[in-house]
Amino acid sequence: MRQPRLYWEDFQPGGVIEATRAPVTKEEILEFAAEFDPQPFHLDEAAAEASLLGGLCASGWHTCSMVMRMMCDAYVLDAASLGAPGVEETRWTKPVYVGDTLTARATCLASRASASRPTMGLTQFLWEAFNQKGELVASLRSWSMLERRRTGEAA
Amino acid sequence: MRQPRLYWEDFQPGGVIEATRAPVTKEEILEFAAEFDPQPFHLDEAAAEASLLGGLCASGWHTCSMVMRMMCDAYVLDAASLGAPGVEETRWTKPVYVGDTLTARATCLASRASASRPTMGLTQFLWEAFNQKGELVASLRSWSMLERRRTGEAA
Repeated sequence: MRQPRLYWEDFQPGGVIEATRAPVTKEEILEFAAEFDPQPFHLDEAAAEASLLGGLCASGWHTCSMVMRMMCDAYVLDAASLGAPGVEETRWTKPVYVGDTLTARATCLASRASASRPTMGLTQFLWEAFNQKGELVASLRSWSMLERRRTGEAA
Repeated sequence: MRQPRLYWEDFQPGGVIEATRAPVTKEEILEFAAEFDPQPFHLDEAAAEASLLGGLCASGWHTCSMVMRMMCDAYVLDAASLGAPGVEETRWTKPVYVGDTLTARATCLASRASASRPTMGLTQFLWEAFNQKGELVASLRSWSMLERRRTGEAA
């Protein structure tokens, strides 16, 4: 298990972190859809082409999950993360198609100490995902719970 | 591909649909976490037991994805679904542990015709998931896009 390098104090409003990942494959889209979201436009190429979406595309939950993974690799696994109570708003603004290369961007929007737990702080992040054309495909706004740096620990 | 039996007109405020699924296994939790959310409390039993969460538990995105699948089986695959533009609010209210049996409940909150597309209607659903103790583990509030029943088609 990695030792956290980043505590609540290390995330300040305006800070930005970016990450990318390998192009989304047809196999990944089909595997996720078969298990979790077997709607025809996520599972069947012909049905997807005939739909409003215009082609086989990832489940919105798959997109969120891919963004989560990019964020884990970018900073979450290095942070003293205590999870999140939810997501204030999730938007799926464009389909994610086979071959799309996603870039995720975390922007720190706000920060506050926890009123009930002095060892914890809360940080509001906007997570956005863009395709290779720079089009926004998804956005999430959420408060994360993070450990505070312990007194006496080097900043 | 299944022919839709349910159109926008078939979902009226107050309507409720429930579904359940087999208990969540450790293997499912670990597999999802390894791919999408490798935080220690989703991937490492000892770390999870030492954390606030008290034991190995599913990623929130895994829970959402399981709820999506339950809803697909309950009604979405029988409906003329056109997808959803996002989720207004997602809450993870309790951890989902190994062995938990989840029940999902969809409640239709509101319904409106589309202003821009006469063949489409919008339906607002609250999706809630409960564990075997009846505790709410997750809730999602979202507008779905659905095809309207075509004129002349039997109701």
